[in-house]
Amino acid sequence: MSQAQEPERPDYARRQARFETALVESGFVAAILLDRRNVFYLTGTGQPCILLVVPNHPPILYARRVAAWVRSEAAVERVEQAASLRPAAGRVRELGLKRGRIGLELDVIPGRLYLKARESFAEFEIDDVSSMILGARMTKDAFEQHQLRRSAALFDRLHETVLESLRPGMREIDVAAEVSRALRRAGHENISFYRRWDACIQPEGLVVSGSNLARISGLAMTVTGVGLGPALPWGASERIVQKGDLLVIDLGLNRAGYQADMSRTYVVGRADKLTRELFEVVLACQQAAIDAIKPGIPAEDVYAAALRVVIGTRWEGHFQGYGTERGRYIGHGVGLDLDEPPVLAVGDTTRLRVGMALAIEPKLIGPEFGAVQLEDTVFVHDGGAEVISAVPRALFEVG
Amino acid sequence: MSQAQEPERPDYARRQARFETALVESGFVAAILLDRRNVFYLTGTGQPCILLVVPNHPPILYARRVAAWVRSEAAVERVEQAASLRPAAGRVRELGLKRGRIGLELDVIPGRLYLKARESFAEFEIDDVSSMILGARMTKDAFEQHQLRRSAALFDRLHETVLESLRPGMREIDVAAEVSRALRRAGHENISFYRRWDACIQPEGLVVSGSNLARISGLAMTVTGVGLGPALPWGASERIVQKGDLLVIDLGLNRAGYQADMSRTYVVGRADKLTRELFEVVLACQQAAIDAIKPGIPAEDVYAAALRVVIGTRWEGHFQGYGTERGRYIGHGVGLDLDEPPVLAVGDTTRLRVGMALAIEPKLIGPEFGAVQLEDTVFVHDGGAEVISAVPRALFEVG
Repeated sequence: MSQAQEPERPDYARRQARFETALVESGFVAAILLDRRNVFYLTGTGQPCILLVVPNHPPILYARRVAAWVRSEAAVERVEQAASLRPAAGRVRELGLKRGRIGLELDVIPGRLYLKARESFAEFEIDDVSSMILGARMTKDAFEQHQLRRSAALFDRLHETVLESLRPGMREIDVAAEVSRALRRAGHENISFYRRWDACIQPEGLVVSGSNLARISGLAMTVTGVGLGPALPWGASERIVQKGDLLVIDLGLNRAGYQADMSRTYVVGRADKLTRELFEVVLACQQAAIDAIKPGIPAEDVYAAALRVVIGTRWEGHFQGYGTERGRYIGHGVGLDLDEPPVLAVGDTTRLRVGMALAIEPKLIGPEFGAVQLEDTVFVHDGGAEVISAVPRALFEVG
Repeated sequence: MSQAQEPERPDYARRQARFETALVESGFVAAILLDRRNVFYLTGTGQPCILLVVPNHPPILYARRVAAWVRSEAAVERVEQAASLRPAAGRVRELGLKRGRIGLELDVIPGRLYLKARESFAEFEIDDVSSMILGARMTKDAFEQHQLRRSAALFDRLHETVLESLRPGMREIDVAAEVSRALRRAGHENISFYRRWDACIQPEGLVVSGSNLARISGLAMTVTGVGLGPALPWGASERIVQKGDLLVIDLGLNRAGYQADMSRTYVVGRADKLTRELFEVVLACQQAAIDAIKPGIPAEDVYAAALRVVIGTRWEGHFQGYGTERGRYIGHGVGLDLDEPPVLAVGDTTRLRVGMALAIEPKLIGPEFGAVQLEDTVFVHDGGAEVISAVPRALFEVG
């Protein structure tokens, strides 16, 4: 893994130009972006703003507050102050636009805001521009890859902390607390961002042990834990970790806004034969997925490659879940959100491209043994996939 | 402050009945709730679900996954499994409904989901039901008050941790790390929930010191800190805390889903005369607000009462911000979200009611001195407001 020098500031002009081209190709006359991650991607500011993009005109950034701060850091010439859509609507008309499609991020902006936009742009058609901006964000440039490597490196600190502190008798939340402390000191932003409006995860991720490993909760995850109660029923619980337990930690490591998704499985004590076998299978699944990755193949083929390792074996029914709760996926894109496209899942035929950052997360789950999971973030290069974390892809015995 | 025994399980049937009544009174024929906090409030499950409420018919809860889990905890007789709106749409027609208004939470559900709902319920009118459910949530029952007291008590642990660990030479994120660890061990859920779609705060809150105290960032907050960089420009930074600095911590303490909003100001070393004066003014503002609170008065009057303390004094221009960034508010409702109605702000004429939980957060801010802030969560009782935290409303000298 090469630790290149920090690349210069991202080429925002290029990102903006590519987005404008995509807009024109899809027949949009303008786009209005409000999502903080999208605006950060295109301009470099994470302050709440409204970004107006009209192809062939300089973009305008309306800072909802602290315009001077935004002006000092955003890669946009024209920064104004505005907390509503009105100035953007005025500008669109000033430019002579009279009809056509205006793009909004309908995957995240609330229905109420969508309706307001419909009023503000009554003579225009409002349409969803999410897939276009997320499409642009799928391939990571040199700057972003550098950021993701730094995020993945946060797992080194987590790993050291677990090796040093994990002991029988601790509760899952005690482990979570030690991990939280170590990650925050190391520069973890302490919030993991999801694209999906109602998804969330604790900053230390999912810290799950023993019998909780097979208790599947929530929506999109599989080794979830049960949390502290029904208000937030995933993540660390008050369960006391016991000798012989497995413990999985799975989280989005967020440094400077970029999230590397990683997971390791720890054994409290010595791993028995079954656990070793489970890990070998999971590792083989991950390796098969990694080996399958190359530019041009459909995303779903990566899942198929991993699945082939377990088909016809006793582990097939435990792969990515068990019983009625089985996921037909092996990973997903990561970046400014923890759940970016593509999904490496049955039905996603997006062609892999050089520069994609993908989380590969095989797991075997069953009430008899709990779960063994392994997750790494990889980059898609010309020659195939590169795993970007230095923490060995191994099963660890602790305590 | 009375520490009553934990009340029985909430009276979900009563909450549902009240919501149904509100629906009928506002002319809705049905409501479809997807927001996890709203569904938790009405049913007791925090699993991702779709709740269909049709007045005079038993509600149906569609678990998007793990229906058995949902069935085991939700106060709804009929639990089915469904990840889309289709079954709910089928049920509405089965009940013979043919037209009318159907309520959705347009304050949080994405535009795309709103458009899907419009298709699924093509012959109906989709309208916003947010204010109705948030209106019901404004007054907290005995169970909720108990939960909020327990959340506020988390600040005891934070406070002890700061007194024990804060020393010159630590970075703001080192303080945040110690606070994170202590709170997680004490049962903090480690995520603070906002109603506003793009608001977020680190679980340890805003840890802000020295010159950062007057750097206002973000959207709705005032003592914000600057964060680790532009991706998330508020909260703790790498700034090194120095002898003589002020340090403010402001956060949503989330236990069992209920969030008490609190803040204290610490002096690293000895407080000088100016700091003591600032604190006395802030305390007087908070006390004036607390004294003003009684059932029946408009929310904005609480702000007016606090403002009166500083009007005509040298502090007027530093109250709730300075320069162009001044907030005309003194607090807001708290509960399952950290930013619930009412807002104790100019223009909010909501009448205060017994059972409301309000955060009262006066602050003085200025580049010359930084900021001094004091925040407490109070309950509205018949006789006035009750502060629910045991941590003294004082300025603390540390280190």
